[in-house]
Amino acid sequence: MTEKIVIIGNGPAGLSAAGAARIKNRVADITVIDTKAYDTFHPCAMPFVIGGYLPSVDSIIENIRYEMMKIKLHKSSVVEDVDLKEKIVKVKPETGEEFTLEYDKLILCTGSSVFVPPIPGRNLGNVFRLKFAEDADAIKKAADNKDVKNTVVVGGSAIGIEVASELAHLGKKVTIIEMQPQLMPFKISKGFAVTVKKNLEGTGIIVETGVLVKEIIGKDAVQSVKFGNDSLDEAIDTELVVLATGVRANIELASKIDLKISEKYRAIEVNDKMETSINGVYAAGDCIVTNNLITNSANLAQLAGPATRQGRVAGINAAGGNASYPGNVNSFIVSSRTFYIGLAGINEEHAKELEIETVTAKLSAPIRPHYMPTSKDITLKLIAKADDGKILGLEAIGEEKVDVNVNYIAMAIHTGLTAYDLMDIDFCYAPAVSETIYPLVKVADSIIRKIERKKAKAQK
Amino acid sequence: MTEKIVIIGNGPAGLSAAGAARIKNRVADITVIDTKAYDTFHPCAMPFVIGGYLPSVDSIIENIRYEMMKIKLHKSSVVEDVDLKEKIVKVKPETGEEFTLEYDKLILCTGSSVFVPPIPGRNLGNVFRLKFAEDADAIKKAADNKDVKNTVVVGGSAIGIEVASELAHLGKKVTIIEMQPQLMPFKISKGFAVTVKKNLEGTGIIVETGVLVKEIIGKDAVQSVKFGNDSLDEAIDTELVVLATGVRANIELASKIDLKISEKYRAIEVNDKMETSINGVYAAGDCIVTNNLITNSANLAQLAGPATRQGRVAGINAAGGNASYPGNVNSFIVSSRTFYIGLAGINEEHAKELEIETVTAKLSAPIRPHYMPTSKDITLKLIAKADDGKILGLEAIGEEKVDVNVNYIAMAIHTGLTAYDLMDIDFCYAPAVSETIYPLVKVADSIIRKIERKKAKAQK
Repeated sequence: MTEKIVIIGNGPAGLSAAGAARIKNRVADITVIDTKAYDTFHPCAMPFVIGGYLPSVDSIIENIRYEMMKIKLHKSSVVEDVDLKEKIVKVKPETGEEFTLEYDKLILCTGSSVFVPPIPGRNLGNVFRLKFAEDADAIKKAADNKDVKNTVVVGGSAIGIEVASELAHLGKKVTIIEMQPQLMPFKISKGFAVTVKKNLEGTGIIVETGVLVKEIIGKDAVQSVKFGNDSLDEAIDTELVVLATGVRANIELASKIDLKISEKYRAIEVNDKMETSINGVYAAGDCIVTNNLITNSANLAQLAGPATRQGRVAGINAAGGNASYPGNVNSFIVSSRTFYIGLAGINEEHAKELEIETVTAKLSAPIRPHYMPTSKDITLKLIAKADDGKILGLEAIGEEKVDVNVNYIAMAIHTGLTAYDLMDIDFCYAPAVSETIYPLVKVADSIIRKIERKKAKAQK
Repeated sequence: MTEKIVIIGNGPAGLSAAGAARIKNRVADITVIDTKAYDTFHPCAMPFVIGGYLPSVDSIIENIRYEMMKIKLHKSSVVEDVDLKEKIVKVKPETGEEFTLEYDKLILCTGSSVFVPPIPGRNLGNVFRLKFAEDADAIKKAADNKDVKNTVVVGGSAIGIEVASELAHLGKKVTIIEMQPQLMPFKISKGFAVTVKKNLEGTGIIVETGVLVKEIIGKDAVQSVKFGNDSLDEAIDTELVVLATGVRANIELASKIDLKISEKYRAIEVNDKMETSINGVYAAGDCIVTNNLITNSANLAQLAGPATRQGRVAGINAAGGNASYPGNVNSFIVSSRTFYIGLAGINEEHAKELEIETVTAKLSAPIRPHYMPTSKDITLKLIAKADDGKILGLEAIGEEKVDVNVNYIAMAIHTGLTAYDLMDIDFCYAPAVSETIYPLVKVADSIIRKIERKKAKAQK
């Protein structure tokens, strides 16, 4: 009998699961169900729609050639329930009759939703959240209004920084308001957050950290934002607010059918095969909690990259294959118009929590030789274990090569390399692309020298 | 007593050895002796001087702050002999008296020289070789003459391609004449060489392979070049010839003092500590034969990257430390004005010689999402072991990200990764820098599918 695979959700994880399942099993009956009215879109490109780097929201909405792959897609449809005994999915389309689908294997890729704290005034006009293509379109249209001069972005993590950069590029006055005492909290180190803040301020963005948005004020549309802390009350006039206050896993359906949910992370638990607690049911993407390769414990990745890799594994396994996903290493990149911020692994504060003794080194060095017209600096902060120099993480900021330095360190962590090992890698060299000695090798060399000095001291 | 370290040669290896020795030993007496009249220069940037991308040869000549590091440099000086018993180096400066230097540790970084076959007419005017900064300057000056319209580059390897690209950029007619039946012989696969040829021809360069230069004809200056093979005789008018016919290790001094020389490679033999066959004498850079990590056998690297890494190890060890150099993996990049050619590891033909059964996959895929204005394709050819998918090598061509794909594969080879492992690496993603699924991951996935299909067939 033909295997029936049903995939709920057509974001990065669902897409990847469907494709991988089809490649693994040429004859399986594969169906994807999604709430959106369009096939899919590229969430990470939404800031570029807002800032006009992409001409319109149509640029990031995409038709998937599912017909060619003989995959059925039900758009604008919600899965209301699953009958685990009968192996039936109950689908409610936006228009038309409810229907059911049988499955042999089920993959939940239900994603995440923007979490907005109950700030008074959060439903006023020109107060936006950013999750779907239509949100990007709405923000873009609002920002196109020349009377919108002052903008506020609530939340200083990746999406907040990216949206702020695009609004600044449009010539708006932009204020980022971050509740935590630093930008990109829980992601980058305190020290590196200062570097990031300086870089953002260099582009004219105002950064307020350690302050809470207390109220959004306006009649129909927003007029000002009140923020502060116990001892401070401030207000800022604004005509546009974007709430980039984080996301939460969509686990309503998973809870309903009693899949095991991580209490701490409020996301679906899976093993390295992407199997949930119920036989034949897989999950992948923003809705799951997965393994972190550095801490070897649960974490939320909630990024398109890991979602795609997890989706592939779920798809292959649902189609009868045998793939596994070892986990993520916190690889991360944020793009502003003028520079990138990247990280992989953990930072000093994380290491302290994990009681790992570390050595760190930070430097700025040219990515190409100083005599090349395209020479420019990148700033790298590397962290390694104090005893053996095992690489734990990297923070990076610069106009170029941030992504690749993140990737080198992601590979180093995956393979357990030390700072000493980085001395040996046969990195290629040509003046048009690199320095003879890469900035990453220079910062690893600093780590080695610190370790060697410590050892020499200890021997005395 | 203060340790005396003498380094012969101030190219990438010598420079790196001097710096590393100084860091390891703050008080050692370090002396560098070099034949050049200037401190050092950047050989890999010479083509950019010729093509005018860099304003003049001064851009690539550099003063090293040796005074700050308390390192002595004797310029324009040749080491004529070494007394191994007395540990004395005999130095002949271009002007002035001969002198001697005592050493405790000696590091030979004597580099390589352009090898020019005995072609009749090779000493005519406007026939150049390219090894030192002054050669680049001379070629540039000759090319600046508007009567120089037709140029010939003899040799289709890296330096030949780079010089040809720069001459083409200046509007010259350029013909590359390569003796072997393909471009970049012994470096890239036959199939990939066809791709490289097409790309070069796309920039207007004429490529003649499998033909030998028989004679260079002219009165004072070159007027034409005769080339062909047993059954073919052709001639081409030209006003400028660059002989990019390869390099050979400088081993005169090493031979004189009876260091062990590889017969096959005509270069100095060293172990992974960069120790030669004589106690206290180290060698690094273009003059040595070193380990290849893939074949686990001797090879010539003769590139600035490996030279720098080897020099560092020699410097540390000479200064009393304990570093080692495991070997190179053939990482390589060639830059033209419009695209890059890169490789790491071995190709099909190498693998065949080594009797390794392989699987290869080649694809062109966008480095950034198709909807981004900066999207462009890269072409990757990956090779892996047929049984377990262990990565053996990569060939790459494209306008961007060639270097980093080479480096990812260099890291993969260093750490023994398989195509399966590449599926798991937590590569970062942002539309401004990458696709969700990297071209490298896509081509690794093709390898996996081929292996799985073979396995499935074998099971039937």
